[in-house]
Amino acid sequence: MADPDKLSKDVQGMKTDDQEDDGQIVDPWQVVAASDKGVDYDKLIKKFGSTRIDQKILDRFEKVTGHKPHHMLRRGIFFSQRDLDFILDCHEKKQPFFLYTGRGPSSEAMHMGHLIPFLFTKWLQEVFNVPLVVQMTDDEKFLWKERLQAEEALRLTYENSKDIIALGFDVNKTFIFSDMEYIASSQAFYKNIIKIQKCVTYNQAKAIFGFGESDSIGKISFPAIQAAPSFSNSFPQIFGEKDQGKIPCLIPCAIDQDPYFRMTRDVAPRLNYPKPALIHSVFFPALQGAKTKMSASDPNSSIFLTDTQEEIKTKFC
Amino acid sequence: MADPDKLSKDVQGMKTDDQEDDGQIVDPWQVVAASDKGVDYDKLIKKFGSTRIDQKILDRFEKVTGHKPHHMLRRGIFFSQRDLDFILDCHEKKQPFFLYTGRGPSSEAMHMGHLIPFLFTKWLQEVFNVPLVVQMTDDEKFLWKERLQAEEALRLTYENSKDIIALGFDVNKTFIFSDMEYIASSQAFYKNIIKIQKCVTYNQAKAIFGFGESDSIGKISFPAIQAAPSFSNSFPQIFGEKDQGKIPCLIPCAIDQDPYFRMTRDVAPRLNYPKPALIHSVFFPALQGAKTKMSASDPNSSIFLTDTQEEIKTKFC
Repeated sequence: MADPDKLSKDVQGMKTDDQEDDGQIVDPWQVVAASDKGVDYDKLIKKFGSTRIDQKILDRFEKVTGHKPHHMLRRGIFFSQRDLDFILDCHEKKQPFFLYTGRGPSSEAMHMGHLIPFLFTKWLQEVFNVPLVVQMTDDEKFLWKERLQAEEALRLTYENSKDIIALGFDVNKTFIFSDMEYIASSQAFYKNIIKIQKCVTYNQAKAIFGFGESDSIGKISFPAIQAAPSFSNSFPQIFGEKDQGKIPCLIPCAIDQDPYFRMTRDVAPRLNYPKPALIHSVFFPALQGAKTKMSASDPNSSIFLTDTQEEIKTKFC
Repeated sequence: MADPDKLSKDVQGMKTDDQEDDGQIVDPWQVVAASDKGVDYDKLIKKFGSTRIDQKILDRFEKVTGHKPHHMLRRGIFFSQRDLDFILDCHEKKQPFFLYTGRGPSSEAMHMGHLIPFLFTKWLQEVFNVPLVVQMTDDEKFLWKERLQAEEALRLTYENSKDIIALGFDVNKTFIFSDMEYIASSQAFYKNIIKIQKCVTYNQAKAIFGFGESDSIGKISFPAIQAAPSFSNSFPQIFGEKDQGKIPCLIPCAIDQDPYFRMTRDVAPRLNYPKPALIHSVFFPALQGAKTKMSASDPNSSIFLTDTQEEIKTKFC
């Protein structure tokens, strides 16, 4: 195994988001734009080192899949990518790949913003006809939210899963799992988690996620758990016991999740796995304006799937 | 939950072992005495804050159990303890408790030094007639040893378990488990692990174990995995689904393992669990002398259970 302190170009020299001096903060835990105009996505693409989705790749998408790109692609709601060309190569050559997305179950119901990656992923599953895994990071929410009990986080996984199921994913090709339940039932998954944990130093986690010395050891090691579903051999029940983790993965997600997958892409070659490809969305703006995103922890910022007509009316007035 | 940065007296102000300036290093990964006379155990007791096993507690042991203390107790091989009186109270009041010990499977066979806690634990199980859990920390060995593969660590668990089973523990009251297998099969265990991880900061782990920024996030979060078997509700198959983790635990181990359980004792009240009690042994000296202990990574320092008469002869000559 290579020196875990030696960072690949994916990570090297990265400044953490809260070290930025332009006032824009984008990480998995907060999104604050520098101005009321909203997040500067060009700056994010440059900073994260991803690639803008341009007309050329949309044309190729249509040619390879035979489907007109989804309006979320045409209108730039999904605006950035990593290795999408490689996934289109796979589809063209009829080589297998899979989709991976997720949700941190922090509220009773999901809101409009949460739906974006799921609606888009459902369409991708229809277009590509491939397996999808959906990770519910109840352990993450437990670790991050001081007052949340583990048992309650697991209950929220089940509540939120109902909202996800209701979108109509292919029941024969979709695996929705709670971290707390799946880690405690799959050696394959846990082995990948510790293999990733072995490759990432505290220094790296600090550089990528901005962790500090007062953060819990649970938070510091969690990124390996979000990384592990990127590797197909975390799911022998889907890809077979003989799979060595070689089946590539495409991850649709909001761009604030990119730090997890920059780390994953850095680790992948050291474990002899393919790097996951990504397709990033912009954020769904809060009802108060584009400076922040809809957030379950501020109910007034969001339209929840369970809001009544009356509640929605109140939020708009 | 209390502020995880606020350390209890168990941990506060601790210097890590390698910060000591007396030249004596005792931590879970190395034991080096300052002089050829061997480890200064009085200094260790003072530094770790444990209690020497004295004649008074040996007399009480005999009175409460009706057994003459084991020669390893009478001869000071088990020489230090935490809350042993409390465990004797439990036995006297016929209240349940259990034993927990373990092994890091880093070699094909175990050596004489490894036998000490197991031989003693077997005797304790006979005296107290209580359940015993034996943790095989194959994940730890995988995380610490650069070239060790996860699959090989699991194989060594099985090899070493044979040596442990051969000592003749009560088959109806003994649970030997691989971390990699048990985490991947028990929600109860994994929940306790993340509950502990939530209570321990990087700062605390650094202070207790001497971790540095170049250590992997796997190493940094591992102590929670060694802590979790101290709590009875990690084993609902033994103590029942209704157990809330209230059944106390006695841990026989060499004193180099004490840092794990100082941390555990610090965390326990915050999770509403009893603090584990401990009974510590000295180290089994290397064949080269008392300055270091027998170590599987230096075959010439140790007599392995699989060594032939010829090999043993060579090692002594």
